[in-house]
Amino acid sequence: MNPATICCRRASLHASFSRHVVNSRSIPSPSSSRAFRTSSSVLGNRAIVYSNNGDPSSVLSAITFPDLPPPPPNTANLRFLLSPINPADINVIEGVYPAKPVPHQSLSSDDSPVFVGGNEGLAEVIAVGKGVTDLKERDWVVMTKPQSGTWTSGRNVDVKDVLKVPSSELSEAEAATITVNPPTAYNMLHDFVRLQEGDWVIQNGANSAVGQAVIQIAAAKGLKTINLIRNSREDIEPLKSHLKALGAAHVATYDELSDKAFRNKVKSWTEGKDIRLGLNCVGGKVTTLMARLLGEDAHLVSYGAMSKSPLSLPTSLFIFKNLTCHGFWQSRWYDSKTSVQRAQMMDTLVGLIRDGKLQSPEHEVLVIRGQETDSDARDKICTAIARLTGGKYGKKVLLKVEETP
Amino acid sequence: MNPATICCRRASLHASFSRHVVNSRSIPSPSSSRAFRTSSSVLGNRAIVYSNNGDPSSVLSAITFPDLPPPPPNTANLRFLLSPINPADINVIEGVYPAKPVPHQSLSSDDSPVFVGGNEGLAEVIAVGKGVTDLKERDWVVMTKPQSGTWTSGRNVDVKDVLKVPSSELSEAEAATITVNPPTAYNMLHDFVRLQEGDWVIQNGANSAVGQAVIQIAAAKGLKTINLIRNSREDIEPLKSHLKALGAAHVATYDELSDKAFRNKVKSWTEGKDIRLGLNCVGGKVTTLMARLLGEDAHLVSYGAMSKSPLSLPTSLFIFKNLTCHGFWQSRWYDSKTSVQRAQMMDTLVGLIRDGKLQSPEHEVLVIRGQETDSDARDKICTAIARLTGGKYGKKVLLKVEETP
Repeated sequence: MNPATICCRRASLHASFSRHVVNSRSIPSPSSSRAFRTSSSVLGNRAIVYSNNGDPSSVLSAITFPDLPPPPPNTANLRFLLSPINPADINVIEGVYPAKPVPHQSLSSDDSPVFVGGNEGLAEVIAVGKGVTDLKERDWVVMTKPQSGTWTSGRNVDVKDVLKVPSSELSEAEAATITVNPPTAYNMLHDFVRLQEGDWVIQNGANSAVGQAVIQIAAAKGLKTINLIRNSREDIEPLKSHLKALGAAHVATYDELSDKAFRNKVKSWTEGKDIRLGLNCVGGKVTTLMARLLGEDAHLVSYGAMSKSPLSLPTSLFIFKNLTCHGFWQSRWYDSKTSVQRAQMMDTLVGLIRDGKLQSPEHEVLVIRGQETDSDARDKICTAIARLTGGKYGKKVLLKVEETP
Repeated sequence: MNPATICCRRASLHASFSRHVVNSRSIPSPSSSRAFRTSSSVLGNRAIVYSNNGDPSSVLSAITFPDLPPPPPNTANLRFLLSPINPADINVIEGVYPAKPVPHQSLSSDDSPVFVGGNEGLAEVIAVGKGVTDLKERDWVVMTKPQSGTWTSGRNVDVKDVLKVPSSELSEAEAATITVNPPTAYNMLHDFVRLQEGDWVIQNGANSAVGQAVIQIAAAKGLKTINLIRNSREDIEPLKSHLKALGAAHVATYDELSDKAFRNKVKSWTEGKDIRLGLNCVGGKVTTLMARLLGEDAHLVSYGAMSKSPLSLPTSLFIFKNLTCHGFWQSRWYDSKTSVQRAQMMDTLVGLIRDGKLQSPEHEVLVIRGQETDSDARDKICTAIARLTGGKYGKKVLLKVEETP
């Protein structure tokens, strides 16, 4: 990606209030008690929002709203630069994800909540409130509070819910995708078993964004990975080569995994050394087979269930091989850690990116331009989501919602 | 049980060597290098042995052998008082259990191993070798080394493989059954989550020996248990009453568990408090349903798989409810702990028994009398095992192999 293609547009000055409700069924008018304040700033905002859970194409709207008022104490006003459309974001809109967003304070009325889509994103600080010492204008920040609502040109946030990232060391795309997948990979490799250089890790769904981060972070630590991928791909050899180029020790398909001879192949790869950690985002038979390859006292960490089948494991693995099974959810990680711990983890990831050891997954940028209508903006988003859910995008989609003129 | 019925028989003096191989197919003659030494002691021994894995009725034999020679340094000669026939012992003989016994040193030749059946047992010290300071004659000991071979009247053991238990505070049956099931219950309640008084635990297979120990140890700690049992029993109400008398807060059948309303019943029992620990010896659907009742951050510990179905759990339980799944195997516990840790745990269990807070499960004693032939002894054992595997015994069977005249 060329960061130049997504550089921040400095739009023409505009202070008037425009609010076009595209899908009036789902977006209520703000109550008078929450009427927007105009400010001396220059641009309007747009957000992708919903009021009720459901199919994104039915419930999503684009909405324009005036520039943000000056930030209250201990908060910051942000301009979003790039916000991924992650699969989980769609589940949140559908209402099938356990994490529930908080209604947007200014856009909602007491009885009609309005939620802004998006969980992850990179933003630039445009103003800070009283008492804010750790952030200043032009700083880059990412969200650590889950479901902050990032599909917007701008919003006000509590400073404790964001984490500063160095704009000098990361591209916009790298920074915009740094809060969910790379930390998931990093923490799964660190939080469950103390791995030493030369230790073996096995994972399925290895070409997912997390899987690719696992390969790279593991390789940077001197860990060796066995990577399992779906076999129903035409481009299997280029994919294997790509994952090996990222640092994968071995790549095999789920078909190869099902072969009885695969166990011996793995033994020859590891020279009989126990595999100490398994990472699972698939479930079902693929995970049962993978778990059988784990060594004594191993840990199996699940962070997804792409097959929609449950985890099915022989009890003997637990009793006699002392397997321990965990789940991992980056949202819980952020909730349970201090800001210092979050910053340390982020520093490590930034270091890996800076040193060329951790690449972002392939992506494309979807721009909602300031001069587009809310209706066009809504359609653009819904088309992108339909392509994503239909599996038509091979690349991660990064949304850029420009300010409105 | 009345301990008097199994008090140690002081048989008539006898120093001659008798060795009757009942099943010559499976029991080799000892090689001359391992010829038995006669000693000045007074009784012969008998053991229930096998040389090959298989159906116990095909591979088991009774064998008589001379009294033990004086114990080598750091060892002790034992007279066994009572040795349980546990289900796992049968699996070991069949060769389907992961723990493999070590061949009996004196009975085996280099190319023809002989294994003594039995893992658990109470024995009395009859002689100690040089360097043994912690044990003396008449002390009671139990085995902490897995698969020691306890279906015998006597044997020599390394003193580090046994643990002294107080004969003044336990009945023979209590002591003979203290090394596997009560520690399994105790350690599962302690090793995975720090439970506080008033916390909730749920378990299936609640009327197993371990399950009954869980109920009692939990009650002694002020923990509350929800206990799930099979519904295919005619005597369900007496069983429920029995478990409640042991300290169960609630008892329900697997049928009740399958009812959609059961979740609300559990919520009313716990007053909405999270269940923090689940104990599983069943697997399959019963365990899936039980796991769904666990609270946030709960631990599910498996120690058996009576249904022979795998553990099948929705990945969402791991990711979003932070479930952790473990296995527990008391053999591994002993292997991984120091003798001080083992003794501390045993002290705690002895204290619970002494205080009337932990009863042994119902049992009957199967005596192999000294004057019976090896052939009769073998048949008696095989009949008992056939009844056990056919589910015809409701009670635990404790074997007493008397010395031979």
